[in-house]
Amino acid sequence: MFSGAQVSLYPMSDDFVGIILGAIKALEPYRPDFRIETDDVSTLIVGPPEQLFPAMRDLFAAAAAGGAHCVLAATVSRGCPGEPDDPICTPINPSGPQTGLEERIAEARRAVAAAAPLGRDIAAQFSIYPLGIGQHMDEIYGCIEFLKSSGVFDRSKNFCTKLRGDVGPVFATLSEAFLRFGAPDGHVAMDLKVSANSPTVA
Amino acid sequence: MFSGAQVSLYPMSDDFVGIILGAIKALEPYRPDFRIETDDVSTLIVGPPEQLFPAMRDLFAAAAAGGAHCVLAATVSRGCPGEPDDPICTPINPSGPQTGLEERIAEARRAVAAAAPLGRDIAAQFSIYPLGIGQHMDEIYGCIEFLKSSGVFDRSKNFCTKLRGDVGPVFATLSEAFLRFGAPDGHVAMDLKVSANSPTVA
Repeated sequence: MFSGAQVSLYPMSDDFVGIILGAIKALEPYRPDFRIETDDVSTLIVGPPEQLFPAMRDLFAAAAAGGAHCVLAATVSRGCPGEPDDPICTPINPSGPQTGLEERIAEARRAVAAAAPLGRDIAAQFSIYPLGIGQHMDEIYGCIEFLKSSGVFDRSKNFCTKLRGDVGPVFATLSEAFLRFGAPDGHVAMDLKVSANSPTVA
Repeated sequence: MFSGAQVSLYPMSDDFVGIILGAIKALEPYRPDFRIETDDVSTLIVGPPEQLFPAMRDLFAAAAAGGAHCVLAATVSRGCPGEPDDPICTPINPSGPQTGLEERIAEARRAVAAAAPLGRDIAAQFSIYPLGIGQHMDEIYGCIEFLKSSGVFDRSKNFCTKLRGDVGPVFATLSEAFLRFGAPDGHVAMDLKVSANSPTVA
């Protein structure tokens, strides 16, 4: 198993370098569990799948805290057959046999209900791709059923789903969508954008 | 067939609204062929698959022309079975039976060689997902073989491929990767980031 994300932060501000360097400190608590590499386009984080969204949540909340319009964009992946197995990616909660879609939807909903709000509203837009299985649309439709009942569903758009709500439950919803849908050891990818402090909230 | 993209522009500048509004004028020549809808997170463009990357190229080149660090992020899709057929998405060059991987790689390479340079260097990072077919990794590996010989290949990264070069051949390479790999009428998605004027080019 290999799991991680290529993460980019885009502060719409002349001080974008300062905002990014300040926000990256929020990743410190995760460094013992992650491999982290940065270049001019993105920062790679590789580690346990359950920790990816909490790490991105804390990074993004730190960047948005100053009030600038900020976007986090990430390519998140687990189980890619082109990546080597890596012990650092061992799931914290190894999965047993996969349960049915209805049961997974209920579990995901409970996890989101338990997520603490952090006091900042954001929008998120994402697509999830369960790869290499014939019934990929079944898993996508199951995931959408969960999203509609997550409490942070905004609307379906062409090619993606939009969430809106507090940063805590929104990131919990993204994590549940990523972890519980698609085959447990299969290849699942997510294309994610999260936006805070937009001057043009629709 | 349905094809289009959710496109976002991120100028790292206090004047991000002005830069975005100025750049959007570059889409005017495409308006007759596209359906275009904007909200606070992204702009949807729906139209012929061959025109998607030229439209994004012109939009991005306009945004980057002033010298601010700018990123374009897009979720590009064709053939999604969850979207309705739409006559506006009719390919300009309807495909015949799909040829073998080697022939498609050669055709893609010729198309990139014919792309005019536009005088600005950029970086692009993307992942391509051919969905709903068992051999998705074969198409991905074929696409990577093309990318490595495209003239703008920078390097493979975890979960994605990075290109670097002039905006003309880079967008031509992205378009060829999107159009020629995966089943002709199958579901193919691309997660794309393009970056210009970064102060930290690696």
